[in-house]
Formats: sequence, structure tokens, C-alpha cells
Amino acid sequence: MKAFWNPVQLAHTPRFFLARGQLRANFEIPARAEALLEGCRALGLEIAGTPPAERSAMLTVHTADYLDFLEDGHALWAAQPDAGPEIVANSHPVPEMIRNGARRPDGMAGRAGWYTSDAACPIGKESWPAIEAAAGVALAAADEAAAGRSAYALARPPGHHAYPARAGGHCYVNNAALAAERLRAGGAGRVAILDIDSHHGNGTQGIFLVRGDVLFVSVHGDPDGYYPWFTGRTHERGEGAGAGLNLNLPLALGTGDAGWLEAVTQGVNAVRHFGAEALVVSLGFDASKDEPLNALSVTADGFSRAGEAIGALRLPTAIVQEGGYNVDVLGTLLERFLGGFGGV
Amino acid sequence: MKAFWNPVQLAHTPRFFLARGQLRANFEIPARAEALLEGCRALGLEIAGTPPAERSAMLTVHTADYLDFLEDGHALWAAQPDAGPEIVANSHPVPEMIRNGARRPDGMAGRAGWYTSDAACPIGKESWPAIEAAAGVALAAADEAAAGRSAYALARPPGHHAYPARAGGHCYVNNAALAAERLRAGGAGRVAILDIDSHHGNGTQGIFLVRGDVLFVSVHGDPDGYYPWFTGRTHERGEGAGAGLNLNLPLALGTGDAGWLEAVTQGVNAVRHFGAEALVVSLGFDASKDEPLNALSVTADGFSRAGEAIGALRLPTAIVQEGGYNVDVLGTLLERFLGGFGGV
Repeated sequence: MKAFWNPVQLAHTPRFFLARGQLRANFEIPARAEALLEGCRALGLEIAGTPPAERSAMLTVHTADYLDFLEDGHALWAAQPDAGPEIVANSHPVPEMIRNGARRPDGMAGRAGWYTSDAACPIGKESWPAIEAAAGVALAAADEAAAGRSAYALARPPGHHAYPARAGGHCYVNNAALAAERLRAGGAGRVAILDIDSHHGNGTQGIFLVRGDVLFVSVHGDPDGYYPWFTGRTHERGEGAGAGLNLNLPLALGTGDAGWLEAVTQGVNAVRHFGAEALVVSLGFDASKDEPLNALSVTADGFSRAGEAIGALRLPTAIVQEGGYNVDVLGTLLERFLGGFGGV
Repeated sequence: MKAFWNPVQLAHTPRFFLARGQLRANFEIPARAEALLEGCRALGLEIAGTPPAERSAMLTVHTADYLDFLEDGHALWAAQPDAGPEIVANSHPVPEMIRNGARRPDGMAGRAGWYTSDAACPIGKESWPAIEAAAGVALAAADEAAAGRSAYALARPPGHHAYPARAGGHCYVNNAALAAERLRAGGAGRVAILDIDSHHGNGTQGIFLVRGDVLFVSVHGDPDGYYPWFTGRTHERGEGAGAGLNLNLPLALGTGDAGWLEAVTQGVNAVRHFGAEALVVSLGFDASKDEPLNALSVTADGFSRAGEAIGALRLPTAIVQEGGYNVDVLGTLLERFLGGFGGV
């Protein structure tokens, strides 16, 4: 199996992070990627470089104005008097405002809120090149899968909380969604996305909610007590052509291997039942028992068995990295997951 | 004219504030009220104490679950491990989430986001008593106006950014909206709210947008470059029974007395044309040229002339304090405004 990687991703070094009312260190740090690279090397994977994503590929998921904001926003932000080093919004367009006729403001302070859902997606001077690079890595893995060979995308920043025109939760461009669109364009009639990051993949859900050609399954910590709080419940089943093709499997906080693997297996069965011709895995390691903000309690063996269960589908698979923040265990967990996966 | 005041309002001391990506000192401070009290004393107003608002009065505008959050939330928040001293949300339910079936989370971290639109409405241990007290002050002024005598409500925290179930921008309970409802209940068939705080009164707009019995007019800095960013534009004209009864008069940043007074006069004319039987003024002094985050550039003389223009309506008026943050000038500006107003 090939691993795709672009070192430009290391340039993104977000700092701002707010949890339970206090500023804390942001843990979506470049060292995460270094740890995952170590895991790839330990497995003996071929590590292939990739160019940044082309804008046309990003436009399959995102709006042009949003991409402009991600690309050009920081320079405009920095030109404000007394601006902090990163774009961080202090206000967001809530539903009452939309119902009352809200429009996108021209100024950067307002635009920062218009295009984000939280304060956990700071944009620094070097963020855009890393975002483009991460998207490119995901597309390369999708191209490999479209050719029948499963592949691993060492993508950072992650993507699954990003909507077509909104960043959130460390995510800017939805790498997994780009990979799914690329697989569709590459000839797969039905594509499934199985998201085993410990957080609900709300952005990916939003992108494909009404789509009949893409199944989305997410296994995650119960949003009543865990980011992204507002979505990820079982009643969110898809709409229109996508009715029944969105499957959320929230787990009680503290769930360990047994309960988690049961949900992963349920997700795998849904992928099989859907008749997917290709698969995208949104792979997070934040379900690990060793996570700093841990919601679930999955062991290294649990990740290995999840890899096995997903690999048994024998589908060409683009495995796209999402979260996981304990740099001491990320490499090992990747080894165990991909070791279990085997793959096509 | 009587001024209504409750010293319990001084207990609310918000600290968290985020502007252009950096933490700054919150400027909605108790000293604001002290400065306004000085203005009342200088005018020789009778300063009358008031009890906190009854829950039944607050329920005329707000939902029961939201009031529970404001009242009980801090104790639940403080019980979280490693929680900051104030409720401050890190994430908000944006429209995509609502369209995807979002629900209110049970946990306090999620509820903090569900009931707020920004990080500028921190809730501390002593906030609720002050919020109740401010609402009581506004209701007392409305009762006085219902009896035919205009009155001033020295309300703090302010209210005009609060929706029925959402805090934002230093505001929790919408004091002006409570006053308008009280005037309606007191027999005024048509009530107008004229909001001359420098920020769009988005919460008040949201509360009355579909109402045919309440006109809302807001004179404020252009939201393209000024909080609340997303609303406050001229196309927001009201809906259903309220069609045409919402009038936003945004002004270019930097506008001084001439342009501001022209807009205030336009608002006064709309109140007259509507045939209002009673008036609520959302009175902010943040349009002052001396404001720390100044968007407009109004002089003390400008506030005096605005008072004259509004007083010339000869309507029983509840004047409810909203923003204004330069404690060195607040007392003088209140003197000048109320001096100009004269009043019924």
C-alpha cells in the first residue's frame, strides 16, 4: 500500500484553542504528522509525494467564495488594526439570523464568522498551502483507489467537520469528501464513506445528506457530551435521494473495544448492503483510550480489529487521516490499523 | 422623569472578550452603571428601586428552557472538570447543522453553544441575579410609561442582541422587548421600538419580525464592518403581519451628527406614521465619537438633538439603556439625551 504525503502540510501551526471557557494549547500540531509518518515507515509503506489539490477538484465540494476566503483571508485579516496572528471569529451566523435575512458581510471580521462554526479552526499565514496540500494528498489516495489499489492519505489538517462553505473543529477543506467525489468521477457508481474518527463527521454528512450515490456512516462519541454537540444523532438519516443513506452510530462516552467494534461492524455491514464499489475511510485515532480529550476507550488491538473488519470488504479504499492527537501513540495505532486492514 | 435602577445589576462582571482573534478586557463593566447613575443624579431625576423581573414577564419574550439555562447553567458549568470561571461557548449551531436535524445537546459545554451566538456573552456566577434585575428595571419603566409618564430604565446588562432563546453581544434577556410586551399588555395597541444603539438590534428585530403590532426601527453602524455583522441591512423589512414594520437604517462607519440625526429623524417619522401609542427607546451611547470601538462619530450635542427629536413625538416612552462603554462620557451623554428629550 502506498502512503501519500506532502511536507507542506507541516507549515500549518494553529495556536488558538478554547475549551470550557479557557484558552488552551491547540493540539492539531505538526508533530502529529511526524508521528504518523513514523508509523508508515515502520510498516514499510512506500511514501509518495503529491502536489497540492487543484482548485477545480476543491470546487467539487466547496464554494468558490469560501475557497477565496481560505486562500486570501489571512492577508486581509492581518491588515486590520490590532489583529491577532490568526483568523479567529468571535461571532457566527446562527439560524435566527439566517431566517431574518442575514447576508455575508464584506469586512474580514464578519467574514471570519460567516465561514466558520467555532473558534477551533484558526487560520494563520501558512494555513492555506497546508490545506491545499492535505486536499492533494487525499485526491492522490483516491486516484490510487480508483485504479484498484487501496492507499493511505496522511492528510493534515483534517477535513470531516468542514461543510461546503464553512470551517470548524480543526477542519477547512473536506479531504474525505473530495476523495469520494474523485472516486465517483473515476467510475465508481456508489461510494461509501466510513468515518471512525471519535467525533461526528458533521461536514461530510452535510455534503452528502441528499445524495443517493454516496453512503455516509459515522461512529462517534455521543454528541450530548462531545464535539460537535449539535449533530450526529440517529434520527439524521439523510433526505431526498439520500434518504436512509446517512447512518450515525453515536456511542456512550467511555465505550471501549467491544461497543466500538460492534458499531464499526454495523457500519461495515451498511457499506456492504449499500453495494459500494469504492470506500473512503475517515480515519481518526481520537477514539483511543490514550487521547488527551478522550471520549471513547479503544485499545491498539481494537484499531487492528477495526482495520480487519474494514479490509474484509475487499473494496478499493482511500484511507484519509482525520483526528487523533496523542503523538506518542499515533504511529503505533496507524501501524496496527493498516496492519489489520491488509487491503486490496 | 423617574429613573429605575437595581444595584444587584452591579454584580455581573463579565471578563471574557474576544476581538480580532485576541482576548481583551470586557468593557461591559459595572462602572458603566455608576457613570449613568451620576448622570441621573446630575439631572435631578428621582431614582426608584425595582424588584427583579418575574419569570412570567420574561416568558412573554423568552423560552422556558433558555431561562433555565441562564439561571441554572453556571452551577452545571462549574461542575465540569477544568472549567473556566464563566460560561463561554466554543461552537455554535450554524444553519447547516439545523438543516441536518441538529438538536439541543444535554451537556453544558454543548448547551453553552446552543443558547449563544458568540463569545461576547460570558455568564458568571453572579450574572443571573443581575440579568433578572435589569429586566425588572425595564419592566418598571414600561409600567410607568403605560401610566402615561415617560421613564428611564438604567438596565445592565443590555438586551437588544438577545433572541427568544439566545444570548449574544453582552446581552442575555431582551429588556426592550420585555418593555414593549408590557406596554402592549398595558393597553397600547401599537408599540414602536426605536433603537439608537450603534449596533443593530438584531435580537429585538428577531422577536418582532412577524408582528403587526410592534414596529422596530434600528439606526446603527454598517454591519459589513461592525457587530453583529450578519444582520441589520435595509432589505430586512419584516414578514407576514410584520411586513414593512422592520426598518433598518445602517450608516457608513464614521458617520457624524448630520447623517446620524437624519437617520434618527427618519426613524421618528416612521414611528409617527405607524401610529404608535407608546414607545420604547433602546438607548446606546456607543455611537459617540469618544467610544473605544467607535463606529460612528456622534457628539454630545447630537445626543441632545436626538433626545429632542424623539421627545417631540409626545409619546409615553420607556427609555431602556443598551450599550455605550466609555465611562468618562456616559453620564454626560445621558444628561444631554434626557435633557433634550424633555418628555411627556
